[in-house]
Amino acid sequence: MTIYEESLKFHEEKRGKLEIVSRVPVNTSQDLSLAYTPGVAQPCLEIEKNPDLAYVYTRKWNTIAVVSDGTAVLGLGDIGPLGSLPVMEGKSVLFKTFGDVDAFPIVLDTKDADEIVETVVRIAPGLGGINLEDISAPRCFEIERKLKERLDIPVFHDDQHGTAVVTLAGLINALKIVNKKLEDLKIVTNGAGAAGVAITKLLLSSGVKDITMCDRKGAIYEGRGGLDVSKEEIAKITNLNKTAGSLADALKGADVFIGVSAPGTVTEEMVKAMNKDAIIFAMANPTPEIFPEDAKKAGARVIGTGRSDFPNQVNNVLAFPGIFRGALDVRAREINEEMKVAAAYAIANSIPENELNEDYIIPKSFNKEVQSKVADAVREAARKSGVARL
Amino acid sequence: MTIYEESLKFHEEKRGKLEIVSRVPVNTSQDLSLAYTPGVAQPCLEIEKNPDLAYVYTRKWNTIAVVSDGTAVLGLGDIGPLGSLPVMEGKSVLFKTFGDVDAFPIVLDTKDADEIVETVVRIAPGLGGINLEDISAPRCFEIERKLKERLDIPVFHDDQHGTAVVTLAGLINALKIVNKKLEDLKIVTNGAGAAGVAITKLLLSSGVKDITMCDRKGAIYEGRGGLDVSKEEIAKITNLNKTAGSLADALKGADVFIGVSAPGTVTEEMVKAMNKDAIIFAMANPTPEIFPEDAKKAGARVIGTGRSDFPNQVNNVLAFPGIFRGALDVRAREINEEMKVAAAYAIANSIPENELNEDYIIPKSFNKEVQSKVADAVREAARKSGVARL
Repeated sequence: MTIYEESLKFHEEKRGKLEIVSRVPVNTSQDLSLAYTPGVAQPCLEIEKNPDLAYVYTRKWNTIAVVSDGTAVLGLGDIGPLGSLPVMEGKSVLFKTFGDVDAFPIVLDTKDADEIVETVVRIAPGLGGINLEDISAPRCFEIERKLKERLDIPVFHDDQHGTAVVTLAGLINALKIVNKKLEDLKIVTNGAGAAGVAITKLLLSSGVKDITMCDRKGAIYEGRGGLDVSKEEIAKITNLNKTAGSLADALKGADVFIGVSAPGTVTEEMVKAMNKDAIIFAMANPTPEIFPEDAKKAGARVIGTGRSDFPNQVNNVLAFPGIFRGALDVRAREINEEMKVAAAYAIANSIPENELNEDYIIPKSFNKEVQSKVADAVREAARKSGVARL
Repeated sequence: MTIYEESLKFHEEKRGKLEIVSRVPVNTSQDLSLAYTPGVAQPCLEIEKNPDLAYVYTRKWNTIAVVSDGTAVLGLGDIGPLGSLPVMEGKSVLFKTFGDVDAFPIVLDTKDADEIVETVVRIAPGLGGINLEDISAPRCFEIERKLKERLDIPVFHDDQHGTAVVTLAGLINALKIVNKKLEDLKIVTNGAGAAGVAITKLLLSSGVKDITMCDRKGAIYEGRGGLDVSKEEIAKITNLNKTAGSLADALKGADVFIGVSAPGTVTEEMVKAMNKDAIIFAMANPTPEIFPEDAKKAGARVIGTGRSDFPNQVNNVLAFPGIFRGALDVRAREINEEMKVAAAYAIANSIPENELNEDYIIPKSFNKEVQSKVADAVREAARKSGVARL
């Protein structure tokens, strides 16, 4: 039986991977009077007077929605809201298991960016945060930006930022092995979707100076025709020499390749043309841009992928539960760049230097200690950057 | 310490009455491959091909939203969405405790009827049903009607129909004591809000012929000036003689008074003017339209209220968990009149005839057996009336 057949059977047997349970007993009329009428009137009135008390008298402090329109689900593409629901339930399971965050899946019967924003704003009062999931680019950028403007709770598009945080963590540790520094690197990212854009921006936030993003047409630069809004924005902050050319051209002399693009887009020739001690993150799923053994043969030193069956898996689950845990704990108004960078360093530093090696730059996904270190770092960064309310 | 102070303390200690938990283990990468990537792709694709399979591979089959805009919360009125959240969590607790239904509170940042409808429609794909709660009249009627038109899952405004079902149940049993029949009764309802309208309609659905609804201005009849849409509709189907007059006038010779109105609106004089063996449901909360002892003194035979400290409490919790349990079990497309009437008879008949007496016409709220009988009856009625999909 393949993992796909097994998973189908598993889902049929479970009939749902989540459950909403009561935290209070309701066995007597005294129980009912406390949890419901008439006693409940009191917390209601206190919250009416001071809305912040909703964080004290209800579950808002620990509850987020996992919101999707089902347009960019795994590698499956636009399979619609209902089709995406098993993924959203799974994501919510991971939030609870690794971050003790109560996450509820909301799959939306609209793909219109403004309608999505309106809908999320309207259901937000009872929520402590919003995790956007599997919403296709470029709408995901606009939706996240508008929601961040309108809500004072964390809004986080995990496909962008979760991936970016773990990639940065991997890169931080890879640099310890090759003895290079972020600010000296020449980096090429490939794939201008949600993850590619977020990785590029987070690398710039963490001190990288020389970075070029490629799409199917090659290097993106200011003035290249036909760029959409999100690529125009990228063009302004990357590839400052405005160098045109193919991905192969861009990779000549580069220290780092980061792919969130398509299977097989990188050849051994291209890797050979990179700088000494090249670092490769080939995260196309399930087939990477180049297989680790081929990249190694061509001279790459450290290689990460999105797969659990190769070393150095870039897996969001290392980031999002701890990031939300930390943000919720201090009632952060948002999840900002400082918090993401702090999360990346926490992940990277969770591997002791003496254990670090080319095949172990990213901790294993099932390490709950990492999550707790991420949460600590995020709390501290939220306070330092002034977005914490506690 | 009053129940209000105690409840405040209780809420502060609990920090939320609900929790979202995982039904699946995530301890190994095999677990992750089954519940999440890559295995989860298979149920996603199956659902994309056949949306009904969402009921098999996800928790949609057992999950509802408890939706409120916070405009008519308990006796507190319009205290806003956040203020209503402790009630919605409490309601969700009751759904789980008494019906094993997974209920998630959604409190809305809008009071506009059309926006509420749009929002609920957009978040509906992953839900098996919608329980509307504490939305003020007359908007609640329009919102429910439009949602029922647009969704093929049960939409149920509990303040209307839950109260109506339990009132009908009480009336059915009261009639056994006084030896009267539904079709022979002269009934007066008082209070034209959500519950009053629903009770009046459900009584008509169950065979009552002569019923008059009163509001603050007295009897509602076709042609009375200044009626809103919902009262106009009521005027067409009740008080067929178009008799004008005060509540006191309407009660002369009436067999049954049903109040969902205001404290003290019924006097002993009025009860004395009613027919022999008068039945009174005085459900204004916390102070009823007339206190049971006063009604009894004035000659009433059977009296119910909304309070747990008097006999015959009309408590929705007897109805809504079992109604949704039954509706979800057969994937009912809606909750129709037949299902509600069946629920009322199930509640009534759960008291054996030899135990029935004037002070025991409605079963106790903490009787889970009642819920299960309600669910049975609702399943059967859904099948018979053609709205069941299983």
